[in-house]
Amino acid sequence: MIGHAAVKLERVQADLDALAEFREPDQGVWTRRVFSDAYLRSREWLAERMREAGLEVSRDAAGNLIGVLPGPSPALVTGSHTDTVADGGRFDGPLGVLAAIEVARCVREGRLALRHELRAVDFLGEEPNEFGMSCVGSRAIAGNLTREHLALHDASGRTLADAIATAGGDPSHIEKATWPTSDVRAFVELHIEQGPVLEGAGVSIGIVSGIAGIERLQLTFEGEAGHAGTTPMGARHDALAAAAEAVLAIERLASRGDGVGTVGRIDAKPGALNVIPGHVDVWAELRHTSKEWLDESRRELEHDVDVIGKRRGVKATVTALSRTDPVLCSDEVRAAMCEALDQLQLESRVLPSGAGHDTVQMAYLGPVGMLFVPSVGGRSHCPEELTLPEHLEAGTAALLATLLVLDER
Amino acid sequence: MIGHAAVKLERVQADLDALAEFREPDQGVWTRRVFSDAYLRSREWLAERMREAGLEVSRDAAGNLIGVLPGPSPALVTGSHTDTVADGGRFDGPLGVLAAIEVARCVREGRLALRHELRAVDFLGEEPNEFGMSCVGSRAIAGNLTREHLALHDASGRTLADAIATAGGDPSHIEKATWPTSDVRAFVELHIEQGPVLEGAGVSIGIVSGIAGIERLQLTFEGEAGHAGTTPMGARHDALAAAAEAVLAIERLASRGDGVGTVGRIDAKPGALNVIPGHVDVWAELRHTSKEWLDESRRELEHDVDVIGKRRGVKATVTALSRTDPVLCSDEVRAAMCEALDQLQLESRVLPSGAGHDTVQMAYLGPVGMLFVPSVGGRSHCPEELTLPEHLEAGTAALLATLLVLDER
Repeated sequence: MIGHAAVKLERVQADLDALAEFREPDQGVWTRRVFSDAYLRSREWLAERMREAGLEVSRDAAGNLIGVLPGPSPALVTGSHTDTVADGGRFDGPLGVLAAIEVARCVREGRLALRHELRAVDFLGEEPNEFGMSCVGSRAIAGNLTREHLALHDASGRTLADAIATAGGDPSHIEKATWPTSDVRAFVELHIEQGPVLEGAGVSIGIVSGIAGIERLQLTFEGEAGHAGTTPMGARHDALAAAAEAVLAIERLASRGDGVGTVGRIDAKPGALNVIPGHVDVWAELRHTSKEWLDESRRELEHDVDVIGKRRGVKATVTALSRTDPVLCSDEVRAAMCEALDQLQLESRVLPSGAGHDTVQMAYLGPVGMLFVPSVGGRSHCPEELTLPEHLEAGTAALLATLLVLDER
Repeated sequence: MIGHAAVKLERVQADLDALAEFREPDQGVWTRRVFSDAYLRSREWLAERMREAGLEVSRDAAGNLIGVLPGPSPALVTGSHTDTVADGGRFDGPLGVLAAIEVARCVREGRLALRHELRAVDFLGEEPNEFGMSCVGSRAIAGNLTREHLALHDASGRTLADAIATAGGDPSHIEKATWPTSDVRAFVELHIEQGPVLEGAGVSIGIVSGIAGIERLQLTFEGEAGHAGTTPMGARHDALAAAAEAVLAIERLASRGDGVGTVGRIDAKPGALNVIPGHVDVWAELRHTSKEWLDESRRELEHDVDVIGKRRGVKATVTALSRTDPVLCSDEVRAAMCEALDQLQLESRVLPSGAGHDTVQMAYLGPVGMLFVPSVGGRSHCPEELTLPEHLEAGTAALLATLLVLDER
């Protein structure tokens, strides 16, 4: 059957190149943030690509761009996002959307009569934005975009609702964007890995086991500021030395199993060369696909930080900032991926996704799965972000084949 | 002889209180930075106190305020400074100047015929200032204030030379401020400890063994920024984790003997919660009264940082920012202090000074010594800075007695 519906790499590449040209002036090479002019214009172009591929195009109340190849309900859904972070790249997001359009082209060219409607979605604003949110469009589809979210505002005072209206949405009827679970047969997202695992393993496809939950924490160390020359080492309550121990404790804790833990930000006050830091804040996160790992690691961290603080006479506190629970990918979708990859004779590896994706929201509606393709050097969210042509082709073919297997089951 | 020339605590306290009232509006309770209006006005008041004490008052080309009780050359010199840091206290500096004036009063009241001229000096601008300098006045007296220093400018573009002129100096003839070494019999400075050692030891006087040299270093860690969710722990080159190890290495190194080491400032980039820090700068300093200790500690730190960097695949470099060599106090002056404290039956302890002082500059001209009095809670450079009345009295009496012993020797 695949023979009848062959993915054409050159079309996907041409679309990726064309989409990348929609970019914000003076904002880094490939920047196209949600709600920017470049973003709004790019979606006009994208809607036209969907129409050319034979999809019926609409925009929902949340500003999602949806292309439909009609067929019996429930729908097979695929897609991703086309916004980037500031100073981002050309593949994180766009690949999944343009591959979805290529799938539709292949289905039509192969004259395949699917047993399900096919929906290709360009979810609005997946990356963190100036309103302090991510996954705006997929949240709305899953019924998780609230009035409170819509009232969030950016630095200029504009609300998220106003911004969604500029993207063709209808925020005053946001509930119309939400799908019933009965709409969804399965959701599959193709995305770049954004890490070095697949490249290191030398395989072209990753089957995502689940999307890691994230525990974000703020660690505060209150010691005693003092003169760096006149306070003997034994009389110090150095908040920065305590924080340094905590940074290493987080690294140690996170190195068990396949979790990750990161201190991305540290702020030491007063910050003068000749003053012992009296107050240090550290922002940390832990990620894992297991809730139990997250719970246990956080407890152990709290214990470690308590011990560090008591030993040093530094008041140490751990404050939970946010918690996102892990999402496991559906066994059924993963089995379909394995079957598809067998047909294509593509080697794969199972791995967790440490990054969040629209798939997390789509999991509220039905079975989900994600396919990863390698990122050169593991790099993403930067202009050097790159996925090699053979991997673009393998990924798009795997997406098509997986959807066809799911269609037949 | 001390009986004939008794220090009167109430006079010293009244002067401290009156001087503290010269303060900058809107700048923290006791702020009186060099060249501020409050500072300039306070020195008119101070010159009047010197005259009342029977001193012949002059201002030199560097803006130092000098009171002389005439007598045979070389002079016994004492003094300190009256400027404060921003948000500083009432004792760091003023005590040494006002005690010098009290010494002059006592000498006159006791009708003591000294064998040496007595000079009481209010050194201009000892604290770090907006021109990036400290010990401005004492540098000039020691012949260490250069044309390059005078050309330094503050944020408003004003040069240090212009600022010195507002303080009554004559910067175009700065060399006139320099004393020949033949002028100085000895220099003794009374100062607050600014640390917790004397309070902890329960003694009222500290005999300073030397003034620590300072090695200031910048440590730079260049790792690899990466996605905090998608980069496995084993694939990271986390610049902040490397820096955290270095912070603890500095603490460990500095805890040998009576040196100190401090990381006062850390800057981790990009500083986002979900990005592994790729670049971290750390500003550190080491202080000790031994040159060998400073040299060895710096070499060990360079070695440790190299090992940390190589193990983590993080490029780690140590850059020397500045080096001030230690100054040892004169054996003769210390012996005179011991004799004076015996006479006064005051308990003392020998300790190094971790902070820099005008004494460092005066050491270019002759034998120097410093007397410390306890700081409550070891605190200084803050509004809570406090030295108890009995310690103010003991310190001033010790200064007088030490100068009298030196005068007789």
